[in-house]
Amino acid sequence: MKLGFLGLGNMGQAMAGTLLRAGHSVAVWNRTEGKTEQLKSLEGARVATSPADAARNADVVLSILADDRAVLSVALGEGREAEPEPLIGGLGQGAIHMSMSTISPALSKALAEAHGARAQRYVAAPVLGRPEAAEHGQLVLLVAGPDEAIEACAPLLLALGRRTHRLGFHPERANVVKLACNFVLAAQFEVFGEAYALAEAHGIAAPTMLEILKDSMLRPEPLASYGERIAESQFEPAGFRLSLGLKDVRLALEAAEAASVPLPFASLLHERFVVAMACGLEEKDWSAVGRILPHKRAA
Amino acid sequence: MKLGFLGLGNMGQAMAGTLLRAGHSVAVWNRTEGKTEQLKSLEGARVATSPADAARNADVVLSILADDRAVLSVALGEGREAEPEPLIGGLGQGAIHMSMSTISPALSKALAEAHGARAQRYVAAPVLGRPEAAEHGQLVLLVAGPDEAIEACAPLLLALGRRTHRLGFHPERANVVKLACNFVLAAQFEVFGEAYALAEAHGIAAPTMLEILKDSMLRPEPLASYGERIAESQFEPAGFRLSLGLKDVRLALEAAEAASVPLPFASLLHERFVVAMACGLEEKDWSAVGRILPHKRAA
Amino acid sequence: MKLGFLGLGNMGQAMAGTLLRAGHSVAVWNRTEGKTEQLKSLEGARVATSPADAARNADVVLSILADDRAVLSVALGEGREAEPEPLIGGLGQGAIHMSMSTISPALSKALAEAHGARAQRYVAAPVLGRPEAAEHGQLVLLVAGPDEAIEACAPLLLALGRRTHRLGFHPERANVVKLACNFVLAAQFEVFGEAYALAEAHGIAAPTMLEILKDSMLRPEPLASYGERIAESQFEPAGFRLSLGLKDVRLALEAAEAASVPLPFASLLHERFVVAMACGLEEKDWSAVGRILPHKRAA
Amino acid sequence: MKLGFLGLGNMGQAMAGTLLRAGHSVAVWNRTEGKTEQLKSLEGARVATSPADAARNADVVLSILADDRAVLSVALGEGREAEPEPLIGGLGQGAIHMSMSTISPALSKALAEAHGARAQRYVAAPVLGRPEAAEHGQLVLLVAGPDEAIEACAPLLLALGRRTHRLGFHPERANVVKLACNFVLAAQFEVFGEAYALAEAHGIAAPTMLEILKDSMLRPEPLASYGERIAESQFEPAGFRLSLGLKDVRLALEAAEAASVPLPFASLLHERFVVAMACGLEEKDWSAVGRILPHKRAA
Repeated sequence: MKLGFLGLGNMGQAMAGTLLRAGHSVAVWNRTEGKTEQLKSLEGARVATSPADAARNADVVLSILADDRAVLSVALGEGREAEPEPLIGGLGQGAIHMSMSTISPALSKALAEAHGARAQRYVAAPVLGRPEAAEHGQLVLLVAGPDEAIEACAPLLLALGRRTHRLGFHPERANVVKLACNFVLAAQFEVFGEAYALAEAHGIAAPTMLEILKDSMLRPEPLASYGERIAESQFEPAGFRLSLGLKDVRLALEAAEAASVPLPFASLLHERFVVAMACGLEEKDWSAVGRILPHKRAA
Repeated sequence: MKLGFLGLGNMGQAMAGTLLRAGHSVAVWNRTEGKTEQLKSLEGARVATSPADAARNADVVLSILADDRAVLSVALGEGREAEPEPLIGGLGQGAIHMSMSTISPALSKALAEAHGARAQRYVAAPVLGRPEAAEHGQLVLLVAGPDEAIEACAPLLLALGRRTHRLGFHPERANVVKLACNFVLAAQFEVFGEAYALAEAHGIAAPTMLEILKDSMLRPEPLASYGERIAESQFEPAGFRLSLGLKDVRLALEAAEAASVPLPFASLLHERFVVAMACGLEEKDWSAVGRILPHKRAA
Repeated sequence: MKLGFLGLGNMGQAMAGTLLRAGHSVAVWNRTEGKTEQLKSLEGARVATSPADAARNADVVLSILADDRAVLSVALGEGREAEPEPLIGGLGQGAIHMSMSTISPALSKALAEAHGARAQRYVAAPVLGRPEAAEHGQLVLLVAGPDEAIEACAPLLLALGRRTHRLGFHPERANVVKLACNFVLAAQFEVFGEAYALAEAHGIAAPTMLEILKDSMLRPEPLASYGERIAESQFEPAGFRLSLGLKDVRLALEAAEAASVPLPFASLLHERFVVAMACGLEEKDWSAVGRILPHKRAA
Repeated sequence: MKLGFLGLGNMGQAMAGTLLRAGHSVAVWNRTEGKTEQLKSLEGARVATSPADAARNADVVLSILADDRAVLSVALGEGREAEPEPLIGGLGQGAIHMSMSTISPALSKALAEAHGARAQRYVAAPVLGRPEAAEHGQLVLLVAGPDEAIEACAPLLLALGRRTHRLGFHPERANVVKLACNFVLAAQFEVFGEAYALAEAHGIAAPTMLEILKDSMLRPEPLASYGERIAESQFEPAGFRLSLGLKDVRLALEAAEAASVPLPFASLLHERFVVAMACGLEEKDWSAVGRILPHKRAA
C-alpha cells in the first residue's frame, strides 16, 4: 500500500521500519529531521517535506506522536506551533488517517469529525508494547472506527501486531482502553513500590518479595479469576470475607507505621474497604471492594 | 508425626484433612464444635477438648485462626474470651508451634518469645492459597524461624504446599511478607474496579477490558520485568519517560471526570507522578514512580 | 469612568450595579440577553451588542465569566463558540481589560500577552466574596498587573471592595492566589464532613460538633498562629509533638473504622504524618506535617 | 476538695498547679519522679508513691497521660509495664476518676465499666488548649459521664476551663469529639502546607498567602456559615455551584502540576468533587461535597 507515516520517535521508527520491510511504500515525516536518517535508505522509503506532503497520494497515513498538542499541530494545523501544511490538507478523499498516538478520547473524537467533514476517514489504533515489539510486529493493537476503514487497514494491522482488539465504531473508545491499560500498568509500579518498602523496612530484600509475588499473587490465574469476579460483580459465595480483607490491610498499615513507612495506596485501599463495610458488604468476597465506585444516575 | 491442629475454618479443615491423608495423627480442636464432624471420621484423627489437650504429646501443633485476638486467646490464654487451657500450657519442651494465621508481625514476635521462655519452639508459616489448594497440597508457604525447627517440620511443609519460601530466622518476617502479598492482591481489586469504571463509562464492557488486560499489562512478562526494575531501582535508560506516564494518567483522569467517574487510586497515582517530577525524575523510566517513598534516616 | 462590563451572572450583575451606583457609565454585555433587564434601567447603563461594542471608547472593561472557555471566546474570539466580535477587537490602545474571572493562571498570562501585542493593558483582579458582598462593595480583590494600570483602576477597586491585595506585576499570580483560596475553603467542606461523620456515628449531632469547633480549633487565633508557624517553618520548640499527633489521627481512624465510617482525608492525613516520621520529624511540632511536600530541585 | 493527679507532663503540671492555686489539696504522681519537683513546694501538694496512693482518700483523681498504654498501666495495672499499684486499687467507693487524656473511645468505655464494677465513678473530660491555657484556667473541657459525677466535679471544671461542653452520659463520646477536634486542626496543617506550596511555586510568599487567607476564607464567618450548611445538609439554593467548585479545584491542580508541585489533599478533594458529580449534585451548593460519605445501612 501507499503509506504516510508521521512521527519517528522510538516507536514510530520501529513501526515505519516494519511496514517498509513488509513491502509497503512509506513517505516518512518528522518535525526534527535527523530522525529520518536510518529509514530513508530502506527500499520504498521517501522523506516527506510536511505532513500534507506525506499524505498526498497515500491510501493510509499512520501517526504516532507525543501528545494532544503535537497531534493538533501535525494533523489539524492548530495551536501555537502548528505545522503550516498539516495532514488534513494533504489527505485525499476516502483516504484514511490511522491515529496510533496515546491521546485524549476527546481529541480522537474531534479528529474523526474533522476528517469526516472533508470526506476523509479516521481510525483510532493506539498500541500496546515497546519499540522491540514494534520492530518484530508483535504489538497489541486497539482499533476502533468504521468497519470498512479498519478492514482496509488489515494488512497494516497484520504487519505491526500479534493481535488486534476491535472496539467498535466510536474511535475514542480505543483511546479510553489505551489509557485504562496504561493506568493498570502504572498502578503496578506503586503497588510494587509499597510492597517493597514494607518488606525492606522489615529486613526482607525487594527481589525476595518479587520472587514470592511472581509465584503467587501476580500469576495469571488469580488475576484472571478475580478480574472476572469483579467484571461480573459476582461476590458470593465469599472465597475470603471482605471484613477479613480489611483486617489484613489494616495489619499491613500498622506494620508499616511501626517502621515509619508511608504506604499511600495501602492507606487509600484501607479507606475503600471501610467504604465497602459502610455499604454492608462485610460478608461478601473481599474483591467486592472493586465495585463500590458511585455511578452517575442516568438522566 | 504426632500433630495438634487448632482452627477448623475452611482453610483449617482442608489442611488438617491433607495432613491426615498424608498419614499423620492429628488431634484437632476448634472453639465451636461442629467443625470437627467431618474430620473425626478420618483415620488418625482425634477431637481434642482444648488447645492444651491438642498440644499434649504433639511434636508440632499447627494453628490457623482468624485474627490476633483469636491467637492470643487460643495460644496464650490472653484477652476477654481467653481459652482456659491455651496451647502454651500443653505444649511440651522442644515441641513446635507452627503458626499459619495471618497475624500482626508484632504478635508473631511476641509468640516466639512466649514459647521460647518455656523452651518450646515457634515457627511462623502463613500460607498463600485457597481452601482448594490446601486440599490438594498446593499451598505456597512462607516460613521463618530457627532452621532446625523448620527442618523438623519439613514433612508437613511438603504435604501442604507446592512451594516453601524460607524467610530466615525472624518469624515475624514471614508475617510481613504475607501481609504484603495480600496487599498486592487486594490492590488489584481497586485497579480492576477503576479500569472497568473508566471503560464502562465510555461504553466498553468490563469483560472486554479484562480480555485486553490479560493479553497485555497483566501478563507475567511485563509484570516481572517492571518488578525487577523497581526492585533494583534501575530506571535508566527510560523505556517510557516518566513525564509521558504522568501525561497518560492525567488523560485517564480527564476522561473519567468528563464522565463523572471518580478514580480514587488513579488520582493518587497522578499525585505520585507529580512527586516524582518534583524529585527531578522526568527523564527516567516511568516505573521510577515506584521508588519515591521517603525512608527514615537511620539513627 | 467609561466602563464596559462582560458577564452578568449573579456576581457580574451585582458588581455592575455597584459600579453604576458609584456614578460610572457602564456598557453591559451578556451572551444571553435576559440578564441585562435589571441593569438597563439604571442611570448610566447601556446594553452593548457585543464584547467589542462594550469595549469601544471604554477606559476599562471588566469581565467576570464562568471559565477559561468563556473567556477565550469573549475576550479573544477563540474556540468553537467564539464571539464574532470579541473584546480584543474593540478595546482601544492604552485601555484596560480587568479580568475578574476565576481562570487558569496560564490563560491569564496568555491574555496579558495578547492585549500587550495590541498596546492594550491587562490587569488580573479575581475576587473573593459572594454576590451580597459585591452588592455592598465588600469584596476582597486580588490584583496583579502593571502598577500604572492598577492605579488607573483605583476608583473601581474602591467601589467594589473592602480591601485590595496587590500581588505584583505578573497578573497570573492573582489567579494562583484565587485558586489557592478556593482550595482552602473547599477543603473545609471535606474536613467538616469527616468530623461530622465521625461524630454522628458515635451519637453526637453535627451542630454540637460545629459549636465546639467554632469555640476552639476554628477560632482565628489557633489558625493564624499555626498558619505562621508553617509559613516560617518554625517547628521548634514543639507545642505538641508530631508523634502524638500521629497517634491522635490514628485513634480517630480506629474509632471511625469501628463504626464503618470512611474518612478519606483523615486517612491521607495519617499517611502524611507517617511521611513526617520517615523524615525524622517526630520530636518537632505536629504542624511540621504541613511542610513535607517535595520541592523540585532548581536546575 | 481532696484530689489525686496522675501524669505531670507539660499539661499535667500546669493543670495541677492551677488546682493547687485554687485551694485544693492535691496528691501528685508521675512515673518518673523529677516532674514533681516544682509542684511539691506549693501549698496543699503531696507527692504520692503510686497511683493507688494518690487515689486513697481522694474525692476525685484526675489523670492526663500520654496514650492508651499509659492509661491501661496507670489506671488498671494492665500491660507489660503495668504499675504495681494502679489507680483502680486505691480509689474509694463513690470516688471519681476524671480522665482527661486523649485516648481511644473504646478504652474510655472500658474504664467506665471497670470503675463501675468497683462502685467507683468515671468521667471523661479531655481538654482543648495548650499548657499556657491550662496555667490560666482557660481550657475548653469536653465532658461526658453521669450527671451527678460531673456536677461533683464542677469546682474543678471551673478552675481549669473557660468553657465546658457537656456531651451526655456516655463518656466515650467526649473522647470521640476530642479526636474529631484534633483531626480538624491537624487537617489545617496540610491545607496550609498545600496552599503555600502552590503559592510559593508561583512566586507568592507564604506570609502573603496567609495574610489573604486570614482576611477571607479563614475568618469565622464563612467557616461558621458553611459549617452550618453542611451540618444541616442545606445545599439549596446554591451560593456557588458544585460543578464550578470542581472546576476551580481542577485549575489549582493544573497550576500545581505545571510547577511540579504535588498537592495530595487537593487531589483527594478533586476526587471527592467527582464523586459528588456522580451523585448528581452538580447544581447544588459546592459545600455539598462535605456530605457524600456513605453511611452504613442500619441493621
